[in-house]
Amino acid sequence: MKAAVIAGATTDFGELWERSPKSLAREALGEALKESNLKKEEIEAIFVGNMLSGMLGGQEHLGAFFAEALDISVPAFKIEGACASGGLAFHAGVNGIWSGQYKAVLVLGVEKMTDFKPEEIATALMGAGSEEERVAGATFPGLYALIASVHMQKYGTTEEEMASVAVKNHYHASLNGHAQFRNEITVDQVLGSPKIADPLKLLDCSPVSDGAAAVILGSEEFIKNKKIIKPVWVKASEVDTDSLGLSGRKELTTLDATVKAAKKAYQKAGVKPSEIDIAEVHDCFTIAEILAMEDLGFYEKGKAGKAIYKGETRLGNGKLVVNTSGGLKACGHPVGATGVKQVVEVFKQLQGKAGRKQVEKAKVGLTQNIGGSGATAVINIFSV
Amino acid sequence: MKAAVIAGATTDFGELWERSPKSLAREALGEALKESNLKKEEIEAIFVGNMLSGMLGGQEHLGAFFAEALDISVPAFKIEGACASGGLAFHAGVNGIWSGQYKAVLVLGVEKMTDFKPEEIATALMGAGSEEERVAGATFPGLYALIASVHMQKYGTTEEEMASVAVKNHYHASLNGHAQFRNEITVDQVLGSPKIADPLKLLDCSPVSDGAAAVILGSEEFIKNKKIIKPVWVKASEVDTDSLGLSGRKELTTLDATVKAAKKAYQKAGVKPSEIDIAEVHDCFTIAEILAMEDLGFYEKGKAGKAIYKGETRLGNGKLVVNTSGGLKACGHPVGATGVKQVVEVFKQLQGKAGRKQVEKAKVGLTQNIGGSGATAVINIFSV
Repeated sequence: MKAAVIAGATTDFGELWERSPKSLAREALGEALKESNLKKEEIEAIFVGNMLSGMLGGQEHLGAFFAEALDISVPAFKIEGACASGGLAFHAGVNGIWSGQYKAVLVLGVEKMTDFKPEEIATALMGAGSEEERVAGATFPGLYALIASVHMQKYGTTEEEMASVAVKNHYHASLNGHAQFRNEITVDQVLGSPKIADPLKLLDCSPVSDGAAAVILGSEEFIKNKKIIKPVWVKASEVDTDSLGLSGRKELTTLDATVKAAKKAYQKAGVKPSEIDIAEVHDCFTIAEILAMEDLGFYEKGKAGKAIYKGETRLGNGKLVVNTSGGLKACGHPVGATGVKQVVEVFKQLQGKAGRKQVEKAKVGLTQNIGGSGATAVINIFSV
Repeated sequence: MKAAVIAGATTDFGELWERSPKSLAREALGEALKESNLKKEEIEAIFVGNMLSGMLGGQEHLGAFFAEALDISVPAFKIEGACASGGLAFHAGVNGIWSGQYKAVLVLGVEKMTDFKPEEIATALMGAGSEEERVAGATFPGLYALIASVHMQKYGTTEEEMASVAVKNHYHASLNGHAQFRNEITVDQVLGSPKIADPLKLLDCSPVSDGAAAVILGSEEFIKNKKIIKPVWVKASEVDTDSLGLSGRKELTTLDATVKAAKKAYQKAGVKPSEIDIAEVHDCFTIAEILAMEDLGFYEKGKAGKAIYKGETRLGNGKLVVNTSGGLKACGHPVGATGVKQVVEVFKQLQGKAGRKQVEKAKVGLTQNIGGSGATAVINIFSV
């Protein structure tokens, strides 16, 4: 059984105060359908990725909620795994196709965050962390700052190297009409921005965002019958977990869930890290993209920061281009939508429809979506 | 690809103030493993059904949370669909096996409700309903009371008939050592209990409960290699949805999601309603069991109440025995655990290990798990 992405779209990501979750979902699906040759009546199940609707909005039961909102009365599921909710929903959708249960499914990531007070959002987001971390008053900037500090000490990673992640991703976002921050920035601007949790500055952090992303997956048979052109095949979709809190980790400078899921994914896809042309990785903080580059096998430990600073993963420069969407940092991070947006970006790149941010001759793509400070990792590998 | 239930257990259901979600999960898994020949190291993925942990407890990311608590570092997912969360998690687990992605998976339903104030619980539960219903101040007893009123008016269903559902399920629960209410009751006691939402009385309503249930699913190959005796095969696992709120329904006396999911399930399993020996159905209120009996095709519309009153679905009496666990009404209703507990009960019945509540010669079983007032339905059919 094979599965492929056959349509994908996102809404704008940003502070969308005038938009409801329903209207965001309708727009994302509508755009995905418009760019494909599909009708919504062909969708046989809906997999929703969302983290905060219950805690912040009081609305659970989002499978049926969006099935009704989209007027598609089919089996519907909400999958939650913190900031990896979208990636997990995608994985569940892929399983839905691979199992033979469904021929075409919608994976929908939606999050509405900016309507709430910062302290409400920070508290709700800590629902992704361990009880101990919550009780201790930790927040994610603090946890990732700890990781960054150890990485700097152990490998000599610098604040300038971390800043260069943000600079690259803002550049990519400047080419993405849906991105939250389309302004280019400099290393000096990152270094000069207010400290959030030392050594992380404001411009090292991804923002709070609203947005939705939609992907339609089809089975091999469905694709054949519908004569769909250039499906983007899912070569592997792998998940793994680690301790919720940092205190349970073997070490702080590696996200073991990424390493384990990536190992399985490369094996299943029959692909080596060196064969990946484009990757969308989970840069919730700049240090997280450095970890990702190393944990995914693109660079040796301690080498990724320097490579990114040299511009190796920037559009137009190298073999591997990373976060052409602008990443979480600059495209925005509506948490449940992020993992689905990553797939949309890879889908568009591999179809050659990524516009000004198109990576030439991109054939193999990877997404890495993380929940919490690394307790969940979802790795997908795609090829045309 | 085939999948079967190869282990299953529940904790006690009830007001378990001294127990944490982690300890409940450990107990349910421990019991399931003990009664089987399996080791937890053989589990390749975890599917968690839970509704309220985020809204009431501030803890999301339950896949990784329970993976850590159970010391099983594998892919882990939380699936939420209100009171159908457990059933949806089971469906996702089945897809995980059918897809070939996993050979053995744990489906875990956990809910901790009784530590919170009644008004907090009622508000959180309405996260399962429509925005309009929440704004209007509706609660589930009121919504099901409306359904009951229309059913009474349209079909002549009586309060005594509804009461007889509770009487039967309390009798069954009196034979279940894990049930929350093991006391037998009479129709007069139900009729004389305080009105909650006319025509529903206190003893027409399922309780607020804590509890956990665990099921282990295996692939055909895994079962063969492990020489597992008497696996309980999943013949069908089907889901469907309807409008979140009652105002969107075609009619109030049928849950269309049940009808649609059941039709698919019977077809896939190649089984007729008359061939079902045992069923665990979603009797969140007594009227809901009457709806289930009719929507699942066991009785014509308007006939189920009379049949239940006559005792046709009571243990020892008829061809079809319903809710031998005691149902939601008397076994208890820890919402995310309920759909998994239903599977545990059918598993034990079909293995002939249901103890004093054993239905003789039970060969084919069905579970029906509902989310909200019928927006989600999960129907599973099993056979030995």
